[in-house]
Amino acid sequence: MINTIAEKPKYPFEWLDITDPNEEELKQLTETHSLHKSSIKDWLQPDHLPKYEKVGDYVFIIFRLHSEKVGPEADTVPELTDKVAIFMFEEKVITLHRKPWDAPNFIAENQLEQHQCKDTLHLVNEIIKSCLSTYEAPSAKLTSDIEFYEENMFLKNRRPSLLKGLYYLRRRVEVTRRIIMLSHEIVDKMDAPDHSNAYTRDTRDLFVKMQNIYDTLFENMNQLVMIYFSISSQRTNEIVRVLTLFSVFFMPLTFIVGIYGMNFEFMPELRMKYGYPVVMIVMGLITVAIYGWFKKKGWL
Amino acid sequence: MINTIAEKPKYPFEWLDITDPNEEELKQLTETHSLHKSSIKDWLQPDHLPKYEKVGDYVFIIFRLHSEKVGPEADTVPELTDKVAIFMFEEKVITLHRKPWDAPNFIAENQLEQHQCKDTLHLVNEIIKSCLSTYEAPSAKLTSDIEFYEENMFLKNRRPSLLKGLYYLRRRVEVTRRIIMLSHEIVDKMDAPDHSNAYTRDTRDLFVKMQNIYDTLFENMNQLVMIYFSISSQRTNEIVRVLTLFSVFFMPLTFIVGIYGMNFEFMPELRMKYGYPVVMIVMGLITVAIYGWFKKKGWL
Amino acid sequence: MINTIAEKPKYPFEWLDITDPNEEELKQLTETHSLHKSSIKDWLQPDHLPKYEKVGDYVFIIFRLHSEKVGPEADTVPELTDKVAIFMFEEKVITLHRKPWDAPNFIAENQLEQHQCKDTLHLVNEIIKSCLSTYEAPSAKLTSDIEFYEENMFLKNRRPSLLKGLYYLRRRVEVTRRIIMLSHEIVDKMDAPDHSNAYTRDTRDLFVKMQNIYDTLFENMNQLVMIYFSISSQRTNEIVRVLTLFSVFFMPLTFIVGIYGMNFEFMPELRMKYGYPVVMIVMGLITVAIYGWFKKKGWL
Amino acid sequence: MINTIAEKPKYPFEWLDITDPNEEELKQLTETHSLHKSSIKDWLQPDHLPKYEKVGDYVFIIFRLHSEKVGPEADTVPELTDKVAIFMFEEKVITLHRKPWDAPNFIAENQLEQHQCKDTLHLVNEIIKSCLSTYEAPSAKLTSDIEFYEENMFLKNRRPSLLKGLYYLRRRVEVTRRIIMLSHEIVDKMDAPDHSNAYTRDTRDLFVKMQNIYDTLFENMNQLVMIYFSISSQRTNEIVRVLTLFSVFFMPLTFIVGIYGMNFEFMPELRMKYGYPVVMIVMGLITVAIYGWFKKKGWL
Amino acid sequence: MINTIAEKPKYPFEWLDITDPNEEELKQLTETHSLHKSSIKDWLQPDHLPKYEKVGDYVFIIFRLHSEKVGPEADTVPELTDKVAIFMFEEKVITLHRKPWDAPNFIAENQLEQHQCKDTLHLVNEIIKSCLSTYEAPSAKLTSDIEFYEENMFLKNRRPSLLKGLYYLRRRVEVTRRIIMLSHEIVDKMDAPDHSNAYTRDTRDLFVKMQNIYDTLFENMNQLVMIYFSISSQRTNEIVRVLTLFSVFFMPLTFIVGIYGMNFEFMPELRMKYGYPVVMIVMGLITVAIYGWFKKKGWL
Repeated sequence: MINTIAEKPKYPFEWLDITDPNEEELKQLTETHSLHKSSIKDWLQPDHLPKYEKVGDYVFIIFRLHSEKVGPEADTVPELTDKVAIFMFEEKVITLHRKPWDAPNFIAENQLEQHQCKDTLHLVNEIIKSCLSTYEAPSAKLTSDIEFYEENMFLKNRRPSLLKGLYYLRRRVEVTRRIIMLSHEIVDKMDAPDHSNAYTRDTRDLFVKMQNIYDTLFENMNQLVMIYFSISSQRTNEIVRVLTLFSVFFMPLTFIVGIYGMNFEFMPELRMKYGYPVVMIVMGLITVAIYGWFKKKGWL
Repeated sequence: MINTIAEKPKYPFEWLDITDPNEEELKQLTETHSLHKSSIKDWLQPDHLPKYEKVGDYVFIIFRLHSEKVGPEADTVPELTDKVAIFMFEEKVITLHRKPWDAPNFIAENQLEQHQCKDTLHLVNEIIKSCLSTYEAPSAKLTSDIEFYEENMFLKNRRPSLLKGLYYLRRRVEVTRRIIMLSHEIVDKMDAPDHSNAYTRDTRDLFVKMQNIYDTLFENMNQLVMIYFSISSQRTNEIVRVLTLFSVFFMPLTFIVGIYGMNFEFMPELRMKYGYPVVMIVMGLITVAIYGWFKKKGWL
Repeated sequence: MINTIAEKPKYPFEWLDITDPNEEELKQLTETHSLHKSSIKDWLQPDHLPKYEKVGDYVFIIFRLHSEKVGPEADTVPELTDKVAIFMFEEKVITLHRKPWDAPNFIAENQLEQHQCKDTLHLVNEIIKSCLSTYEAPSAKLTSDIEFYEENMFLKNRRPSLLKGLYYLRRRVEVTRRIIMLSHEIVDKMDAPDHSNAYTRDTRDLFVKMQNIYDTLFENMNQLVMIYFSISSQRTNEIVRVLTLFSVFFMPLTFIVGIYGMNFEFMPELRMKYGYPVVMIVMGLITVAIYGWFKKKGWL
Repeated sequence: MINTIAEKPKYPFEWLDITDPNEEELKQLTETHSLHKSSIKDWLQPDHLPKYEKVGDYVFIIFRLHSEKVGPEADTVPELTDKVAIFMFEEKVITLHRKPWDAPNFIAENQLEQHQCKDTLHLVNEIIKSCLSTYEAPSAKLTSDIEFYEENMFLKNRRPSLLKGLYYLRRRVEVTRRIIMLSHEIVDKMDAPDHSNAYTRDTRDLFVKMQNIYDTLFENMNQLVMIYFSISSQRTNEIVRVLTLFSVFFMPLTFIVGIYGMNFEFMPELRMKYGYPVVMIVMGLITVAIYGWFKKKGWL
Repeated sequence: MINTIAEKPKYPFEWLDITDPNEEELKQLTETHSLHKSSIKDWLQPDHLPKYEKVGDYVFIIFRLHSEKVGPEADTVPELTDKVAIFMFEEKVITLHRKPWDAPNFIAENQLEQHQCKDTLHLVNEIIKSCLSTYEAPSAKLTSDIEFYEENMFLKNRRPSLLKGLYYLRRRVEVTRRIIMLSHEIVDKMDAPDHSNAYTRDTRDLFVKMQNIYDTLFENMNQLVMIYFSISSQRTNEIVRVLTLFSVFFMPLTFIVGIYGMNFEFMPELRMKYGYPVVMIVMGLITVAIYGWFKKKGWL
């Protein structure tokens, strides 16, 4: 579906936005605007990473924006982000995307008229900024997810499914952070010293902000994983400790009953009338003594 | 409660400070000063994060200052920080806040007259600086809290409630640090190159100082959590070690008494008159031998 | 095999590309272009690290590009990277390499004509950039390898060969990262302030991008190793925990049967008709009690 | 004790140095030089952190220099550092300190005459530099302390008092590092762009050097603590490992003697003449087999 | 042994190089060139750290170059590095060193004539650069040492002497890195903004490169130590795990033989003809059942 967002008379450039083009449309586009095959090939790859390339008389940009809805087990680049391809000509911009995307109309309404875009670079800058801002809401979601896990670990009981959840959460943080890192080049080109202005600096500021947020998320996530293992190991230690104590009580007792289980013919205690109760009492005293020793050591 | 802090004749701008506005007041404000709905909506969210936005003919800022009193289990953004909304017009500043806030009068008395504020940007800069400085005292409190925990862990016995306390302390550090990080944009706009001056640089210096302090706190906090788990695991190890040693004493003894508990008809030792005392002595010698071995190895 | 890529009439410089020179060719080269012995000696070392050196009237550069194909156990500098030696004269460039290398023809076709190379520095810059870009594809491979291991560890069972695989993966990341770090000097010289231009800045941008990517890979790799050990230790803990619980059940029971194995003459219980079944029932009750205690503690 | 270090005729400013002022002297000072109450209040706090404040017509600085002698268990700000208060007027400097301090005379002799101090800022810069340099010697002491602990841990036996010593060492590093970090603001003001010169840059260089040294110390310290726990846990593991092996030897033996301790009427082995010695030999063989298995596995 | 490397007619300065001066020579030097006592005192300290000091009319520099040969257990500053003292006058340079040092002749031959040194600063810069470059070869040695340990840990069996080796390796990295860090000030003064040139920038570049290399080494070293402890702990876990499984087999069996070792008069099983073989078969079945359970759980 080809949609003309901006036209020449009104703006100093033309902007064509194409949603999920079929093969026919792609072929026609390629011919009309003399796009290179390599660019179209890049576009067809669903997991192509961010890219900035000067090809012939246009600049070809692939940017990835954060998907609006991601499933709980989404952990790959195409599951977490959507691809937008931008062809920037001198006086023409073509944007391609698979999923419906409301940014073009929004930009046309707000940014284009407010900021009075003078050239395609300015327009593309607005598109990039709008794409970058899609990472803001997910970062808040990730923060609260990490907080949820933290609370669960520190204050509640460990549940067996936590490790799997941690894995998906970690992957989400990691993949998103990587995509942002790889977008650095594009933002850099947008805000290149020779045509840097207040709008491009805004884009860079937003980029740096996103980078800081996702770096902090990544750091927290790694902390979280380490704390998970530490808490899990601490609980095991706790059990092993209590049970080890338990076993110490029985070792000397089992030894004593073993002594009087020996079959020597000459064991005077076995013939004594009160041998049995005395041994039982002695074992009781030993138990009490061990208990006292543990208490003193602070192990109980 | 609407309070006029500065008026036009005396200052080159007007400053309205509103404490905990009710619905009526909000509606009236919106109409009188033609505020946008989106700004009011942001204001109504209790946990809105720091924000800087140019809306129509004013700049809308949400800043969060550190609450004066926080409970020991406060661990969310609204519990730890209070929200201040600032509407900065060309010649008018409106500040909104929920809790009583003595900064406006303080700024009016001191900063406004001392620094001779010339425009609203200068005034807003003073407000931001005053908000930022509320993070200074809590950082000292957090430092001494961390030190308290450190001392407890290293020098005293571990108490069961430590993990919970650590959690709340860690969250306090983390949330405050995040809010400061997210305030970066606002401070950046205050000290933008085109209107940077000694006062805005002071604000930035204060911001950087706060950032350094809270980064160090965060680093120390993570160290503290790791040390907690290490010390906790070391104590368990200590117990398990001592008790393992204990059990080694009894294993050979229990084996020996087992031998003489066997019911073979032809076991010459069982018939010997001194079989029983000899076995007892042998077991005593084994115990001494093990003790000597442990001593030599340095395990006791 | 000596190949003349560019010649004087057409370009303002000459470019000789030599693939895997034999001793004869090397000797001839040295004499024709008066190359220094030290440079040839450096060239002959298979694992020579990146180098930039001003020798007489030429600059001698050793750069390492990522090998096209690396085996799964490749873990040394020569296994992972190929060496290219560059002799940059005022109006002549000589490149030496062992393996077939298609960059020279590619650069001649594309870069030289497009960018209209004016001097040898410009040409060498294009060569360096082309070498640097060979690190891009392996970084994607390494990322997906790390992700494969992560998934295996978190979601599936640990396989015994994982440690070995981790070792080779870690070495690959480490060695590649080091080579990139050591190439910093060369890129720096290419983009020195006194002859920096858009093309050299592109080289530096690419270098910084590669550095960031490999730094992130290195960080992730270290995280991965730590997570491997944590998960491995957690699984052991799990087993030890379950089995410790198991052993607690049998300790009191073994003690009780020991009691009635004692050979005292006066043990009234032994003579009772229902002594045996009563003891068995008591032991059953103890088992149930321990089970209940474990359940309550949440250890089962 | 008030001491006039520099006077107006000779220098372009006056310098009063007061050692441990009593209440009377403080009151007189306050009146003569119209010092603010808030400054005096700050001075009276023994653990006041570094501070730079413009008050009326003077600048009030609190700097903390490293105490000359610190006890082995010193771990708080006032125990580790001494406070110096500096009042910097246009043409007058007043310094207050509790303990005897030989810097004033030293600065008067050396710096003042050598560098030909022209204003109070220059003088205060020299004072700050002299205070900063007191952190140099303790950093060497801390380095050698850390090295001492490292050597002890890696090469010798762990002593029980190590944890306590580590705590105090860590605190010393941490507190000193924090004080240096908090002095950043003061050094920054000394070397502000509008009056930066070679002498103030020297102060900043010294500050940065100290910061680097203490950051490295802090990093090493944290490493040391982690290594301590790792080594401590490794030793426990070693013991538990050896003793676990030990216990495996006795388990099958104890089981076998248990079998022949059963009271079945029809157990043919019990009646055999060589039953007892055969069982003993079998148990010997089992022991040898287990020993061989362990050897093969490399566990002994 | 005093050696005149450069003299006034030929160069614009004089350069005296003194190898291992005795007391007599030192005294004479001090008098002839009016050196300060404090400088000589610093020179006499074998472990003096890098230093840059303006003394009277000369600059006194202590630089430490990496020793040519270091023993496997060298772990202190004087064992790992050699001291060079440089006295830089306006038109005269004096260098002092203990061990034979071939840099002076090398610099005289190559650098001095090539770069046409114009002043002593230029000469001292060349000396510093030559000293710095002595750290390059050891860094390659350290890298390969770390790789050797890594390979040993991951792919081969842990040997008991590894911990000691790690300690010395870690110390070598740490000490060398510290010395480089402390040389920062000197390099900074060499390349000060007011006389920075291409040669001093080269020195700084070399310094930054060394710093990066040693920072990476330090990071890798710390990783290595942590991996060592993790692998060591993993091996112990492996043993404990296998043996814990082992012990679970014997616990129920030992309990059962205990039951039939009880001396109750009325135990019908004891009188049965096939009691003994039936119990043996039951125990065999239990063993098989436990084996199956372990297999299913994947613990064997």
